[in-house]
Amino acid sequence: MKPAGTVAIPGFRGSGTACGIKKAGKADLALVVSDLPCVSDVVFTRNRVAAAPVAWGKGLRSRAALRGVIANSGNANACTGKEGLSAVRRTSDAACAALGLPAGSLLVSSTGVIGVPLPAEKIEAALPGLVASLSARGIARAGDAILTTDAYPKRGVRRVGVRGGTVTLGGIAKGAGMIAPNMGTMLAYAFTDAPVRPADLRRAFREAVDPSFNRIVVDGDTSTNDTAALFANGACGLPPLEGRDLAAFSEALQSLLLDLALLIVRDGEGASRVVRIAVTGAASGAEAETAARAVATSPLVKTAVFGADPNWGRVVAAVGRSGVRVDPDRIELSFAGETVLRRGLRIDRAAERRAAPKIRKETYAIDVDLGLGKGSHYLYFSDLTHDYIRINAGYRT
Amino acid sequence: MKPAGTVAIPGFRGSGTACGIKKAGKADLALVVSDLPCVSDVVFTRNRVAAAPVAWGKGLRSRAALRGVIANSGNANACTGKEGLSAVRRTSDAACAALGLPAGSLLVSSTGVIGVPLPAEKIEAALPGLVASLSARGIARAGDAILTTDAYPKRGVRRVGVRGGTVTLGGIAKGAGMIAPNMGTMLAYAFTDAPVRPADLRRAFREAVDPSFNRIVVDGDTSTNDTAALFANGACGLPPLEGRDLAAFSEALQSLLLDLALLIVRDGEGASRVVRIAVTGAASGAEAETAARAVATSPLVKTAVFGADPNWGRVVAAVGRSGVRVDPDRIELSFAGETVLRRGLRIDRAAERRAAPKIRKETYAIDVDLGLGKGSHYLYFSDLTHDYIRINAGYRT
Repeated sequence: MKPAGTVAIPGFRGSGTACGIKKAGKADLALVVSDLPCVSDVVFTRNRVAAAPVAWGKGLRSRAALRGVIANSGNANACTGKEGLSAVRRTSDAACAALGLPAGSLLVSSTGVIGVPLPAEKIEAALPGLVASLSARGIARAGDAILTTDAYPKRGVRRVGVRGGTVTLGGIAKGAGMIAPNMGTMLAYAFTDAPVRPADLRRAFREAVDPSFNRIVVDGDTSTNDTAALFANGACGLPPLEGRDLAAFSEALQSLLLDLALLIVRDGEGASRVVRIAVTGAASGAEAETAARAVATSPLVKTAVFGADPNWGRVVAAVGRSGVRVDPDRIELSFAGETVLRRGLRIDRAAERRAAPKIRKETYAIDVDLGLGKGSHYLYFSDLTHDYIRINAGYRT
Repeated sequence: MKPAGTVAIPGFRGSGTACGIKKAGKADLALVVSDLPCVSDVVFTRNRVAAAPVAWGKGLRSRAALRGVIANSGNANACTGKEGLSAVRRTSDAACAALGLPAGSLLVSSTGVIGVPLPAEKIEAALPGLVASLSARGIARAGDAILTTDAYPKRGVRRVGVRGGTVTLGGIAKGAGMIAPNMGTMLAYAFTDAPVRPADLRRAFREAVDPSFNRIVVDGDTSTNDTAALFANGACGLPPLEGRDLAAFSEALQSLLLDLALLIVRDGEGASRVVRIAVTGAASGAEAETAARAVATSPLVKTAVFGADPNWGRVVAAVGRSGVRVDPDRIELSFAGETVLRRGLRIDRAAERRAAPKIRKETYAIDVDLGLGKGSHYLYFSDLTHDYIRINAGYRT
């Protein structure tokens, strides 16, 4: 999965720069803005300790006025109290003024270390240069400037033929640690020149966030700063999408966001593999999700994935402790399509040996059928490796 | 914390041997039995995928008849279907017969790899030798024979003066991986020559299990095999404990089980430190427990503990995502007694620097006060290290 080279969306311009929040001149400030008014939607972290920009964003009187986003990396502006909120306001006001837009026209995001005051003055000082360097090709540079422990940038583009022309969707995202379902810990921004009515945009966005960003698990932690947003400026000049065109747009949006989400989980801190865990036959959909989540966050399962060990016992134990209804004698389980457990009993060593080479691949599936009902759910998760420990035991000190 | 050298409890004898379940002649079969009838109580794993010996133990018609335990390591006898249950019955019947006791007089436990048929014939073949070598000092050998990934044996002894004499309590335990609250994944057996009425014994045991085995977290996984039991044979010859004597017995039992529990978490796979996380000021006791558990299982917190990083941001983020009621502006947090966060704001770098040397110790406390109510809870957890990955990525293959 290589990221798209550029992210050029008609009517949107972006830029990224180093304003001095990160050390050594690393890019840490991103701006993407639409030349036209937008229809937009935003979803935020459910973490009760929300960072200042999230609290501020939730309180925006009208998100209808949003035209883009300004985001910094290197500092999460979380647990920073009233001064943190002031820093968000200063950032927003200064950026909107520099763009000649009314106050409140930009979403503000931060990602990085928690608890350190955000130096808004560094952002203000960098704004003239940031605005001057806005360009259609600069959205990718904005994507680079929001990265933290990411090993590579995350971006993608989709083009969809609709009646009368073509619409373009593009997105940038960041995230590697603190990833769990429910607004997985990350920033993601998608932009499109499609003309979409507000209610349609909201529906399409929520339907695309659920099977993508809400289905990835790196470490089970959820950040204080998660934010995902979609901006649609209608710059393609077509009338509002309807019927089949709207469906095609929604599908492309889902595909784009899933790509971005998989780029994030694939970049899970220290990750060597990504596994799709699917639980079927659960007593309910909610129980399937609970079971899948227990598997996806189990350190024992995650280390077995790293070790390429078809250790179905750990998977079954995780499902068992999740609290969902289970009849051990009905469980069926496969690694990479090789069934190793049927009616709760190990098939034989040969089945595990057949699975062994397939689970050395970078990505594969673990399927668990509980044989009880029709509930099903899936998640993508990364493994737990030596590099995860190395990265996180030494991130700050 | 060094384990006691011997575990000699009047009227109990034990032994351990290598019956061939583990490779290379490692001890894998343990027996402890009382010479006299016992009052006993047993608690089992809440994992819904319970191993065969757990299912069998839960179904025992009368636990009043229990006189001791036979336990093997190297094979969990879990996910083994009807044959697994037959293997438990064969083990139990053969052991009871070899001891000249009625069938059903012994608790049966297994710990080890999941999904592999238990070779009951190896246990049967070893029984004559195992019974012949029973001795008062052999309880410690039994404790050695139940170990799996444990780095050291876990045992302890307490003596309590009561009216008319002294009673002795002793225990053996095993466990290092798959440890989480609610019958943390482990085996633990305590024995006493104290005379305790059944209802008193049950109350004392449950009250001692909650603040010990139910308060330790290694990896958040819960095993299919967890079992803890207490056997009291009254061999001291005194009348049933009452009043102050019963209270002193209960206190000693709590102290003994807490020691065993701390020996387990200290031996958490790859652990370098044990932290006591206490959440106070929560809206309720249940919310305090939820928050403490989120901290104790957070990979980001656990790697920060390994890295000796006073990373309160990760602790606060874990509490925030746990779903409990939180007012970020009221949180107070300390590492090893050094307050680093007050009213949701970082105090200064100096406070973190003061904490730094204290969190390099083998054990310390993290205290989080939410400032909302009177709910409180604490847990002991181990850190997440390179050795955890090494041990678990290669355990089976």
